[in-house]
Amino acid sequence: MIVMKSVEDVVKKYFDRSVTDRERAIFEGAVALGAIYHQFLGIPVCKDEGIIRTLEETISKTMKLQPYRESVEVKINADEIKGEKSHAYDYETLKGRHLDVKVRTKFGNTRAIVRMRHIPEIEFTLMYIEKMEEV
Amino acid sequence: MIVMKSVEDVVKKYFDRSVTDRERAIFEGAVALGAIYHQFLGIPVCKDEGIIRTLEETISKTMKLQPYRESVEVKINADEIKGEKSHAYDYETLKGRHLDVKVRTKFGNTRAIVRMRHIPEIEFTLMYIEKMEEV
Amino acid sequence: MIVMKSVEDVVKKYFDRSVTDRERAIFEGAVALGAIYHQFLGIPVCKDEGIIRTLEETISKTMKLQPYRESVEVKINADEIKGEKSHAYDYETLKGRHLDVKVRTKFGNTRAIVRMRHIPEIEFTLMYIEKMEEV
Amino acid sequence: MIVMKSVEDVVKKYFDRSVTDRERAIFEGAVALGAIYHQFLGIPVCKDEGIIRTLEETISKTMKLQPYRESVEVKINADEIKGEKSHAYDYETLKGRHLDVKVRTKFGNTRAIVRMRHIPEIEFTLMYIEKMEEV
Repeated sequence: MIVMKSVEDVVKKYFDRSVTDRERAIFEGAVALGAIYHQFLGIPVCKDEGIIRTLEETISKTMKLQPYRESVEVKINADEIKGEKSHAYDYETLKGRHLDVKVRTKFGNTRAIVRMRHIPEIEFTLMYIEKMEEV
Repeated sequence: MIVMKSVEDVVKKYFDRSVTDRERAIFEGAVALGAIYHQFLGIPVCKDEGIIRTLEETISKTMKLQPYRESVEVKINADEIKGEKSHAYDYETLKGRHLDVKVRTKFGNTRAIVRMRHIPEIEFTLMYIEKMEEV
Repeated sequence: MIVMKSVEDVVKKYFDRSVTDRERAIFEGAVALGAIYHQFLGIPVCKDEGIIRTLEETISKTMKLQPYRESVEVKINADEIKGEKSHAYDYETLKGRHLDVKVRTKFGNTRAIVRMRHIPEIEFTLMYIEKMEEV
Repeated sequence: MIVMKSVEDVVKKYFDRSVTDRERAIFEGAVALGAIYHQFLGIPVCKDEGIIRTLEETISKTMKLQPYRESVEVKINADEIKGEKSHAYDYETLKGRHLDVKVRTKFGNTRAIVRMRHIPEIEFTLMYIEKMEEV
């Protein structure tokens, strides 16, 4: 049986020894953003509050399982999504521009706050490091 | 503006004229199964009841938005999933063998009940037409 | 060891006994369409011929592995995709409207030709049964 | 019209000002790993050399389109995959343990080499920073 300490110790061996806690926090946050975009895009959605809330909650709870996540906040911009279903083909699928995601990761004494959201100025769903904190 | 009737009428033109209501119900149910497997596989999961319930609900509600779905029942087999998280890397990702999905579609007077679940005998996550009903 | 005949015989037991070869061909084709849309959406693409050809080939070859597929033809509409990369953020991700997919499935003596492509008239990536053939 | 320089300048504004070139290279590499795992898992595969090579090439070429990637090397471990198809259901779907991915990103004068591969010792598809280089 592998106990908690040893798994994390095994993992540590694989990382370049020059990597700092701050860099590790950034690494973990960035993995989360890439994962969320490519896992959840394409899911059918409509402007129904209940459906949007449940989907936000699922993304948040499941992606928080990955290592060193403190929180995963997900906001789906309902304003950008088609209204409630009025006929059989009246819905759309989740796109990058619908998403506003903020992930907090913590490694050692450093917290990285990374974010993904649509930036109209460049018409791109940008992933970036919003803030670094010592804790 | 496109009204309800006309969208469905436009769609009808694209289907081979020999296609029956029963075949259309089967078609829609099968699309749902292919979609669910390939959309949701890979999501992080653990044996936490709350997380599993929320994920089941999200799959059910979002996939029901597609045309002619009456219901999408999703059961994730928690017994097959690792226990509650005890260290940073202690979780797994959703696999076909975790899923038991039943989709009811209705077109005209016919209902198709299609299903996807792991069949141990052939070690395969099988998609099949479980039952056809006239309604 | 399970031999070819027996796996297919095992599978047959799970299908409703009223299901015809024609319906089975439709079922398999529809699974393919749902699978393709939800598996490949979100992949980064640009107008580079080499990249588009390779992606088309991958979708075609991998999805043909599923049961009873005769062929999977994939055309990605390069005209709808951004030009060759001119800066770090100058690419987009694969969307439904980029895809034109034709899948031929054969079960017993029946072939189903199913298709998925963007229909401008209804602004929707439609999946439909294009043609049924006895062979 | 937005020219090359300005897009990258706009992007820079969103990043915390304390972020170094080295951290940015790590960030971009980690996004790539999260993206690859969650985009490509679930694709049907078998031990056919041609199919495996084409899929490796597609992952490599498409994921290299994301910002600041120098190279994306993808090795799918064919030894772990079922043999050539002998019956309709004789194939499997791509899993984390099949993948060995090495991504090189470069930002300013720093290169990050990040990697994802299955580590038998912890039964986990690990993502890690393999090496940092000044260039």
